[in-house]
Amino acid sequence: MIRVGIVGGTGYTALELIRLLLRHPEVQITRITSRDPEHPHLGDVHASLRDRLDLNFETLDVKSFASDIDCAFCCLPHAASAAVVGSLIDAGVRVVDFSADYRLNDVGTFEQWYQVTHPDADRVGNVPYGIPELFRESIKSANLVANPGCFPSSAILPLAPLTKAGLIDSGSIIVDSKTGVSGAGRKTNLKFHYPECNESVAAYGVGTHRHMPEIDQILGRFTGVETSTIFTPHLIPMDRGILSTIYVLPVDGSTADSAMDCLNDFYKREPFVRVTGDLPITKDVANTNFCDITVRQCGDRLVIVSVLDNLIKGASGAAVQNFNAMFDFDETTALS
Amino acid sequence: MIRVGIVGGTGYTALELIRLLLRHPEVQITRITSRDPEHPHLGDVHASLRDRLDLNFETLDVKSFASDIDCAFCCLPHAASAAVVGSLIDAGVRVVDFSADYRLNDVGTFEQWYQVTHPDADRVGNVPYGIPELFRESIKSANLVANPGCFPSSAILPLAPLTKAGLIDSGSIIVDSKTGVSGAGRKTNLKFHYPECNESVAAYGVGTHRHMPEIDQILGRFTGVETSTIFTPHLIPMDRGILSTIYVLPVDGSTADSAMDCLNDFYKREPFVRVTGDLPITKDVANTNFCDITVRQCGDRLVIVSVLDNLIKGASGAAVQNFNAMFDFDETTALS
Amino acid sequence: MIRVGIVGGTGYTALELIRLLLRHPEVQITRITSRDPEHPHLGDVHASLRDRLDLNFETLDVKSFASDIDCAFCCLPHAASAAVVGSLIDAGVRVVDFSADYRLNDVGTFEQWYQVTHPDADRVGNVPYGIPELFRESIKSANLVANPGCFPSSAILPLAPLTKAGLIDSGSIIVDSKTGVSGAGRKTNLKFHYPECNESVAAYGVGTHRHMPEIDQILGRFTGVETSTIFTPHLIPMDRGILSTIYVLPVDGSTADSAMDCLNDFYKREPFVRVTGDLPITKDVANTNFCDITVRQCGDRLVIVSVLDNLIKGASGAAVQNFNAMFDFDETTALS
Amino acid sequence: MIRVGIVGGTGYTALELIRLLLRHPEVQITRITSRDPEHPHLGDVHASLRDRLDLNFETLDVKSFASDIDCAFCCLPHAASAAVVGSLIDAGVRVVDFSADYRLNDVGTFEQWYQVTHPDADRVGNVPYGIPELFRESIKSANLVANPGCFPSSAILPLAPLTKAGLIDSGSIIVDSKTGVSGAGRKTNLKFHYPECNESVAAYGVGTHRHMPEIDQILGRFTGVETSTIFTPHLIPMDRGILSTIYVLPVDGSTADSAMDCLNDFYKREPFVRVTGDLPITKDVANTNFCDITVRQCGDRLVIVSVLDNLIKGASGAAVQNFNAMFDFDETTALS
Repeated sequence: MIRVGIVGGTGYTALELIRLLLRHPEVQITRITSRDPEHPHLGDVHASLRDRLDLNFETLDVKSFASDIDCAFCCLPHAASAAVVGSLIDAGVRVVDFSADYRLNDVGTFEQWYQVTHPDADRVGNVPYGIPELFRESIKSANLVANPGCFPSSAILPLAPLTKAGLIDSGSIIVDSKTGVSGAGRKTNLKFHYPECNESVAAYGVGTHRHMPEIDQILGRFTGVETSTIFTPHLIPMDRGILSTIYVLPVDGSTADSAMDCLNDFYKREPFVRVTGDLPITKDVANTNFCDITVRQCGDRLVIVSVLDNLIKGASGAAVQNFNAMFDFDETTALS
Repeated sequence: MIRVGIVGGTGYTALELIRLLLRHPEVQITRITSRDPEHPHLGDVHASLRDRLDLNFETLDVKSFASDIDCAFCCLPHAASAAVVGSLIDAGVRVVDFSADYRLNDVGTFEQWYQVTHPDADRVGNVPYGIPELFRESIKSANLVANPGCFPSSAILPLAPLTKAGLIDSGSIIVDSKTGVSGAGRKTNLKFHYPECNESVAAYGVGTHRHMPEIDQILGRFTGVETSTIFTPHLIPMDRGILSTIYVLPVDGSTADSAMDCLNDFYKREPFVRVTGDLPITKDVANTNFCDITVRQCGDRLVIVSVLDNLIKGASGAAVQNFNAMFDFDETTALS
Repeated sequence: MIRVGIVGGTGYTALELIRLLLRHPEVQITRITSRDPEHPHLGDVHASLRDRLDLNFETLDVKSFASDIDCAFCCLPHAASAAVVGSLIDAGVRVVDFSADYRLNDVGTFEQWYQVTHPDADRVGNVPYGIPELFRESIKSANLVANPGCFPSSAILPLAPLTKAGLIDSGSIIVDSKTGVSGAGRKTNLKFHYPECNESVAAYGVGTHRHMPEIDQILGRFTGVETSTIFTPHLIPMDRGILSTIYVLPVDGSTADSAMDCLNDFYKREPFVRVTGDLPITKDVANTNFCDITVRQCGDRLVIVSVLDNLIKGASGAAVQNFNAMFDFDETTALS
Repeated sequence: MIRVGIVGGTGYTALELIRLLLRHPEVQITRITSRDPEHPHLGDVHASLRDRLDLNFETLDVKSFASDIDCAFCCLPHAASAAVVGSLIDAGVRVVDFSADYRLNDVGTFEQWYQVTHPDADRVGNVPYGIPELFRESIKSANLVANPGCFPSSAILPLAPLTKAGLIDSGSIIVDSKTGVSGAGRKTNLKFHYPECNESVAAYGVGTHRHMPEIDQILGRFTGVETSTIFTPHLIPMDRGILSTIYVLPVDGSTADSAMDCLNDFYKREPFVRVTGDLPITKDVANTNFCDITVRQCGDRLVIVSVLDNLIKGASGAAVQNFNAMFDFDETTALS
């Protein structure tokens, strides 16, 4: 039985993580923290967990917390996370970190896009990116895994094999993503007030979203190819789900068919990536750890459509999959 | 041309009011106030009004404000409204007040339910309640009209004629209402954060909602009959619309048919109340000033279903209808 | 390992059932039928199940079907179900039936409300109603269980203990229910066309809904008390969830507190009924087998609010719970 | 007073058209047809119009119909429309046609994409495309106007001035559109069944949507420049609204700023196109005839975002605007 602690447990990714871990036969959730524990009991913050897990929120005390857990899932905002992850690792705890702090290849890019001094700069660049389909071996042995961003997951899963196989023009990538509102987190904001975003679609972060460099850096890490992705996210009136429509120029005579062959071959043994003939929709992956992908031709472009649940394969499901890899469980445990 | 000013113009009812008044051929909106004018220009707060009305928010200065308007629509919260309405009237301005401050029959009930000292107690009980279908003559000559609550409108419109006609047991009224989220206003709150209230239904204010005494008092004012309504509102994942399902015991041999006859007769010359054979749905009155009503029999009860748009017939449309009555325009002006 | 077959597998309850059973460690789904198998493969009808369960739809041949299964879940419409259930039982298969065919106490009431001759009249009245919290012992030993209706589950779970304990006036029950659209099934109909029911609330079946006699008959079966429930369902723009607001007159000095005590005591050992102090919302039970209940006072009435997921505790989750009881598994298996 | 008839009046565009025309002081709706008049009265099909317009559906008899109207709005499907438009014009009626039949430049392209023989081929190519902002003069004098497609409107309005001004690479245009479900019409289909498309996003018609050639042909007609647009529509869980995200390569040193200048200059006197600094959202144009546009830079691309209401500026509002131009009314009549 692995003892698990959750750092920063009041948000949607923590809630989803707990729901998944409650199905894991080899996990016991022993501790949970909150930075502002207004409500001391878990069930007061997450009413859906009433009578399911009897825990009180505590303020993080690393020494006490670490003594009671084998693995920490860190659900803090960027910078706040890297301020505590190091001491958790030093205390002998393995960590899956949900923040962006350890995802990028270099501190400079992080500090440029996040406009903050990185509190644990030395580790940056040496932490496996938590997509087991691409980085499984380094995840298995890692003490720290950088859980991936939701949009990057939806873009990197289809683009990584195609880029590595040299089927697409690395300078032509446009990712147009549509996400449900849970991706914005649980903090209130007029933009996410129900009557503001219901019955509406909005583009946001055009040219400025922090997941843009993440896509390029991880694609580069996996393929050795430099890309310059154009990325535009859109807010959609639904709870959960991301659909990314990706436009690329094929090269060297590649086609939608050869792209599909490449993806089918690459993912044929992977339990959570489904390469489908039909156009995938987000509803078919909601509440699951699947990413469904297809490729079509339109004019001179390939149009790739990928879908995943931003809270599962885009966050907490990926985290459990990484945890399973790290602790040598079947990767599908608690995720089927 | 009537010059109109809006006090407290940043919320949804003010936005809806402006949209309606822009269609009014005899209205010019000359002034608008905000208590915290972070954004000075109207279009910065209500982006849908960009290029449609060129006004800056100002802090209310009654003397200056009143000098430039003939009628004020007051969209402030309760108590805040009554703190300024008196001085507007004294300055010669006629007022339609959206708050609850002047709706009830007596100050005692107001202070009991709103837990605040009434700033203008003398006027309470002498202000016409703004349902022209019931109180038209006193509205026409009034300097101040208390615009009705959205839930009470949906309950009083069907119940007033039936109660007055003696068709229903005044002690048996149960009003189960369902409202879209715009009814909660524009102030952010975790309860109205999109991922919290989307895909969910919630009862709230059970036994404690302030519209409960409003229903009883206005029914009493119109009919002379004392009622003791049970009222439960529910939050529904949609922008706008109220459906009230009302359960009453018929008396003296009355039936769904005789109740329908009573309503048909009472409202036959009213442009905004439609008594329908079919079960009405909120979508069919969305963005209109209609209230649709029907009556059915179920066991020993009559089941009345009424629908209206909480922002129009339940707020800003009713306000324009009252304004039209006060200034002797056709009541349907700007509302068709 | 129990071999399971599904009769009528193209709808939402069958999909939900499969999702749950795929988590059951002691179940193998071996066969699935459709009355009009336009798409032969499961993944063509339920795209979310692609790569998860490799089965083809077949036309029901009872002999062949029964030879390969231990338990059948019958998801056919009323009357169609009772036309095949008998032969399945005769072939040695135990059956959980989702239809209304075996829920009522007598054939006469069935034929009056469903306007069809019952194809298997002899069994009616002798089949346990599938709410294990009320009828566990007879379910455990049954060859056939009548899976309950979604609305009745939300009403009976709170009302049964209160009625049995004599806390409420049996003639005063009014059930006002709100349901997501999945409750209407998967057959297209203009009423459930997205732009018709989105952003709208509708009452339907006022005084005529078939779940009304079901509530009274099952309450009567459990408590021995005759009730005459007034029941009104409403269609809400969301996928799943039922919230029932139940108005009753307390008797003999009972109060919200004594009602809460009664419910707390009755359900204290039940894993799937949570008696809560807060007002429950449907979101907190979505995708779970929980029914959450509370009681409040309003005027002279008790207002009971109960919530459940119409596809889980209101259908497929209840079916799995019944299956677990019948085959002696822990009732929570595959449901946590 | 202009007498107006509606051909094919049961769908959403006809409903929206009627709502708008009821506000038009110079219009009388005299006749309405349906190809399958199951419900004879308008209010039986469009319940929101109860008591607002007293008309019965009739089967189209051109001679009788034309004798009673000055202008017909034709809301039939493609090919069905062109089968009757000619005879209406011959009978002296001016026509605004909602179908695609007269939008394209040549019959060959129409027949290739719509896979049907055009019933009125001679007129194709000689009918003004109903975007008054681009083709006002020819609309004013026309007997027949081809009302534009909803997606093309959202793409052509921003692209036409930029392409004509030579600011963008004509071979680089990618249009990624998101639409509410009303765009799919009122005919039931499993894809638009509420529980199928709610809480989901889907791409559709990838590489095959008929609005793709319409965008290129109309851009070519206005600018003389040949384009080869990549177009992907997406279905969004909301009633109404289109947001198009358009990716183009700037040429000759053009930037987001120069593109904004171009658009501001082009549309500065147009009442229904708003060039905005903020990112526009569909909610801010819902129920209006506005199209809001902005341009941003992202990497080497310009990202254009345009929004409109698919039923208003994308269909019935544009039709009324065209009607106003044809009959010499102020173009904003009934549209403010």
